[in-house]
Amino acid sequence: MEKQLAWISPEKIESRSMEIIEQEMLPGDWTPGELAVVKRCIHTSADFDYASNLYFSPDAVDRGKKALGRGAVIVTDTAMAAAGINKAALEKLGCSVRCFMGEEDVAREARERGITRAIVSMERAAALEGTVIFAVGNAPTALIRLCELIQEEAVCPALIIGVPVGFVNVVESKERLCAMEVPCIVARGRKGGSNIAAAICNALLYQLVR
Amino acid sequence: MEKQLAWISPEKIESRSMEIIEQEMLPGDWTPGELAVVKRCIHTSADFDYASNLYFSPDAVDRGKKALGRGAVIVTDTAMAAAGINKAALEKLGCSVRCFMGEEDVAREARERGITRAIVSMERAAALEGTVIFAVGNAPTALIRLCELIQEEAVCPALIIGVPVGFVNVVESKERLCAMEVPCIVARGRKGGSNIAAAICNALLYQLVR
Repeated sequence: MEKQLAWISPEKIESRSMEIIEQEMLPGDWTPGELAVVKRCIHTSADFDYASNLYFSPDAVDRGKKALGRGAVIVTDTAMAAAGINKAALEKLGCSVRCFMGEEDVAREARERGITRAIVSMERAAALEGTVIFAVGNAPTALIRLCELIQEEAVCPALIIGVPVGFVNVVESKERLCAMEVPCIVARGRKGGSNIAAAICNALLYQLVR
Repeated sequence: MEKQLAWISPEKIESRSMEIIEQEMLPGDWTPGELAVVKRCIHTSADFDYASNLYFSPDAVDRGKKALGRGAVIVTDTAMAAAGINKAALEKLGCSVRCFMGEEDVAREARERGITRAIVSMERAAALEGTVIFAVGNAPTALIRLCELIQEEAVCPALIIGVPVGFVNVVESKERLCAMEVPCIVARGRKGGSNIAAAICNALLYQLVR
């Protein structure tokens, strides 16, 4: 076992994977920072659709990187996305991850108001102080509520990663975000997910520390 | 906000999504239990490739369900997959999830032996007592080591979910698993991931409890 596999370091697997991705993907009109995000989404899914469905608002990658350099909090809408973000990289930058979805009082308030926990989670996150990045990989209701909170000037995120996945309300929620003048990275169409949300966060982090 | 979205319960979104998936996917020769797994993989990724790339060994779904009914431990190769498995469903069945990847002594042993943490994690998991399901969504080295441990009769999993994603060693590791006479569910080709590993676990759990 060790003879056969010891020589394949994870770093080498990753760099070889990125070479293969770059060879096989269609060329696009990305900045180097955007290209790193596109490649990492393909790396995490083996799905080359991410070479054509990712939308970047102007300077979204630079704004995200600046926010992470200032020790931003990343708010996710699933524990899974939170688990997928590289903790060592976050720690080096003084950043952290928050997910309100599992908190008991969030569930209670959602029940009482007859709305999703994802909506309540976004409202909780809007009250955070400091620099905040939102990474929504699951719930279109979270993304829609976030758009409303921005329009109400109740929150001003440094960056929104809008990549919920699915078949109902998902495309609409992402198109609404794209139409707003806010810094955002969006997987247009049905695709996305907690893994993609985490991958985009990691692609930004790895441009700063590794 | 509450007027607009309160009526869309998460359960309704999910059942409508499953209807859309069934309408759009190519028909296949699955058992009802297998079909539920296929549909949940598409639900979590919006990627219809999972209607053609999933391999089920004979009775894999029934074996997985029996194991979960006996209170199995699910071992994952990422914290992200572990985070994505429904904890309420696990608890109802007396099941649990373990992931050894983040443990300090696993990292130390991997460094000392010059191998991946994923390999050491599988060796640790092989020493677990009771009924064990392996869900590998990330590391081909984990899957290869697991195949070796089975051949050495060091472990006898109730089910192996073999869905690592990627471009290097991934296809080979999954084909090796498919060629063995063990209960397994495999996403053939490059695709898979921690989200897919969790989705397959949840698809089995939801056939027992919801």
